[in-house]
Amino acid sequence: MSQLSPTAGQAQAIAAELRAQILAGTLPSGARLPSTRGLAAERGVSRGTVTAAYEQLLAEGYLRSRPGARAVVAPGLRAAPPPAADAEPRAPEPLSAYGSRLASAEAVQPPRPALADFRFGDLAAEDFPLLAWKRALLAALPRRPAWVGYGAAEGQPALRAALAAYLWRARGLRCTAEQIVVVNGSQQGIDLCARLALDQGAAAVVEDPGYARARDVFRAAGASLLPVPVDQDGLMTDALPAGGARIVHLTPSHQFPLGGVLPAGRRAALVDWAAKTGAWVLEDDHDSEFRYDIAPIPPLAARPGGARVIYLGTISKTLSPGLRLGYLVPPPELVGPLRAAKRLTDRHAPTLEQEALAALIAGGGYEAHLRRIRRRHAARRAALLAALRAGFGARVRVQGAAAGLHVVVWFAELPAASETGLVTAARAAGVGLYPVGPLYVAAPRPDCAGVVMGYGGLAPERITAGVTRLAEVLAQRPGGRASRASAASMTARSNTPG
Amino acid sequence: MSQLSPTAGQAQAIAAELRAQILAGTLPSGARLPSTRGLAAERGVSRGTVTAAYEQLLAEGYLRSRPGARAVVAPGLRAAPPPAADAEPRAPEPLSAYGSRLASAEAVQPPRPALADFRFGDLAAEDFPLLAWKRALLAALPRRPAWVGYGAAEGQPALRAALAAYLWRARGLRCTAEQIVVVNGSQQGIDLCARLALDQGAAAVVEDPGYARARDVFRAAGASLLPVPVDQDGLMTDALPAGGARIVHLTPSHQFPLGGVLPAGRRAALVDWAAKTGAWVLEDDHDSEFRYDIAPIPPLAARPGGARVIYLGTISKTLSPGLRLGYLVPPPELVGPLRAAKRLTDRHAPTLEQEALAALIAGGGYEAHLRRIRRRHAARRAALLAALRAGFGARVRVQGAAAGLHVVVWFAELPAASETGLVTAARAAGVGLYPVGPLYVAAPRPDCAGVVMGYGGLAPERITAGVTRLAEVLAQRPGGRASRASAASMTARSNTPG
Repeated sequence: MSQLSPTAGQAQAIAAELRAQILAGTLPSGARLPSTRGLAAERGVSRGTVTAAYEQLLAEGYLRSRPGARAVVAPGLRAAPPPAADAEPRAPEPLSAYGSRLASAEAVQPPRPALADFRFGDLAAEDFPLLAWKRALLAALPRRPAWVGYGAAEGQPALRAALAAYLWRARGLRCTAEQIVVVNGSQQGIDLCARLALDQGAAAVVEDPGYARARDVFRAAGASLLPVPVDQDGLMTDALPAGGARIVHLTPSHQFPLGGVLPAGRRAALVDWAAKTGAWVLEDDHDSEFRYDIAPIPPLAARPGGARVIYLGTISKTLSPGLRLGYLVPPPELVGPLRAAKRLTDRHAPTLEQEALAALIAGGGYEAHLRRIRRRHAARRAALLAALRAGFGARVRVQGAAAGLHVVVWFAELPAASETGLVTAARAAGVGLYPVGPLYVAAPRPDCAGVVMGYGGLAPERITAGVTRLAEVLAQRPGGRASRASAASMTARSNTPG
Repeated sequence: MSQLSPTAGQAQAIAAELRAQILAGTLPSGARLPSTRGLAAERGVSRGTVTAAYEQLLAEGYLRSRPGARAVVAPGLRAAPPPAADAEPRAPEPLSAYGSRLASAEAVQPPRPALADFRFGDLAAEDFPLLAWKRALLAALPRRPAWVGYGAAEGQPALRAALAAYLWRARGLRCTAEQIVVVNGSQQGIDLCARLALDQGAAAVVEDPGYARARDVFRAAGASLLPVPVDQDGLMTDALPAGGARIVHLTPSHQFPLGGVLPAGRRAALVDWAAKTGAWVLEDDHDSEFRYDIAPIPPLAARPGGARVIYLGTISKTLSPGLRLGYLVPPPELVGPLRAAKRLTDRHAPTLEQEALAALIAGGGYEAHLRRIRRRHAARRAALLAALRAGFGARVRVQGAAAGLHVVVWFAELPAASETGLVTAARAAGVGLYPVGPLYVAAPRPDCAGVVMGYGGLAPERITAGVTRLAEVLAQRPGGRASRASAASMTARSNTPG
């Protein structure tokens, strides 16, 4: 008890010892305690110290005091004996249905490969705008009344106002600040929408291939998944179910993982379908800030007819996923339920960081940072595409390079069954690749090996070195570069954050 | 699009206009677009600008290009017309069962009273250790690789190590760093435990009276509540159900709201009961840092036999609820499921703030701050008790003053039915009080009006002024100080954070 005085510390030590003796049965119920005078003399402490220890144990219910007599040990104090250290571990208690569905969703993170890890979702630490964020934090910090207490469940007013202005400016999305609900990253946005939309057995539409962690959330919620295939233009809206789905999760600005932009015709079909079936459309706009060909695509939520669209944005790709800040722009009738869910789930997002982000956006620093890292990511992308061309030429097909921070690379000469073997061999050589296989649910996949390669966290030299090494690995594989080696199990799991 | 060059901005403006015309049907499917040359001349922009606008719309799927011919509008682009602004609001779509149970849990926050708000859970902004937190943040900030990327679901290693050492030092709780799961405040700790423990219809034990937001979480999860009465010693363990409960939430170190310390005998009975019935014990240690009589009571989780106890700690009462940091210390077999639930729910708590808190604890600043605010809270408590004695004498009974940051005040001469009227009259006079009524579920309550008075956020002068005003209000009430005025509805809701 570091905060106590030496005397108080002595009293605590005596109380702890007596407590242990009582719990062990050495001092049984009804036993009289030593006199304070006697124990004080025995321990070489003041009588007041022993009295303090007894008072503590009286307050905790270990002792009973009797007027004018010595305290005795209270009745009924011994709990069941603790299990011996080497006893059989007890069978785990059954979890809830949610808990048991969850267990299988736990990812195992392998150690980081040494040369280049193309893990999607990684950002380079040195890209984080340290000075700007420090300034924003230091500006917000002294205004303690704005953030020290409990905040609003839906987020800090300053941040919601800054986001509403930003979304109009940068995404053409006109919403009011009152419509925005700040969440702890897009993962929580998906989870809250799932909780509000899905009862056990309800149907949820997901992209196939698509973002595994959205599927995991829906599955843990007890939903039945309706995977809808994806082509080079994103979700194939013709394949949407006629009805029955409560929610669809999709990435229309830049499909994860294949990179398509949902065309205007499919957008119209999707919002019509949502209006007809009553499903919600969760538009996960995870990386639309980065496009290398045209301007960012206006979101579904900005369309006429987009009344059932819940827009989901994040700063995980632009600033840092460690900050855990994202935002939902739901239709007005969902603001109340989402706010209530957020309040009951964890009250609100951290207030100081919200204030700092509000200052960064409102002061222009956020968009200045975006301009800077867009250039850096463009250089990384150029390095990756050049290295793939140099190392593989026509033997690879690169998909989804027009936007975002990752591409999908298909190895034309390697069969799909060799995908895991490829990833394992690359990892052994210090190159982290992530197979596309686990991102598919039921849709037919190309009959050649494919990997997701994220480049947002790597210096161009690393990217070049990693791809060069990968080309060497493939050249050395038994059976040559068109190896038919297959791997029975697909244990690695692509880390696919949003 | 603030990040674009002027030319790009012009292209975007042209694209936006054409997009709107297409969506409005002014440019129907199949219509040929103006030639780039013609439109450029008409708008006074370069031909390249118009070409860029067309390319954007081609990429978005609004146009179809034909080799050697002008682009035409793509088919099937018009969504259902948006509802007119003044149309009937559409009936809200049905929410999930969780969502519909949630709606009733939404609290309405009344405006803050002017003179003194005795809202429980408030902290004084000036108590926050600004310099120490700034130092901790600035120490963590430059170590970007430690926090910029995704973190571990269970929390930053540095924070878990610091918490394990602190819990041993300050709470006598010996756990390993590996056992700790960092959460976004204790609210999320309760929610995650509820998700893992409770299926729809499962039974959850709560204290009666008790913490309303734990009840709300269990209720929203679809649980049936088993309220167990509380007396001056906390939960009446004799009244625990024989079996069937999956979890019990309680506040054994300082019962909320009545202030009892669960005695050793009941602690033994509780852990025995948990071992026998298989229920989990969620020990909400919300404010044990503040005791004014004896040393803090060692937690249930530190007891032999406490193998089914999940310890829940928070910094919401010691530093700031705005930071949203808390921690669970579950039995080892629950660490994996809690980590998985945390990962799927929102990935992890914010990393930079975790690093800052780790530095604050490890450097001794956290406990130095605790010593400082303990003295301040003791002065606030003394002011409150003195003012209540001066203003009311024997006409009030104060409960639970030995610990924490709130007391319950019973007005002996006011009937229970007048509780809401008392709160309303006090609020009209600028004094915020919170009725105990809403904290009860089914247990019999004292037949006099009672309020929860939090003092952690008020200067002693404010406390004195508030209580003095309250005494005046009561003296002026129709029917005198023993008014029988009753209020039909109890709309105010005590804000009772943990």
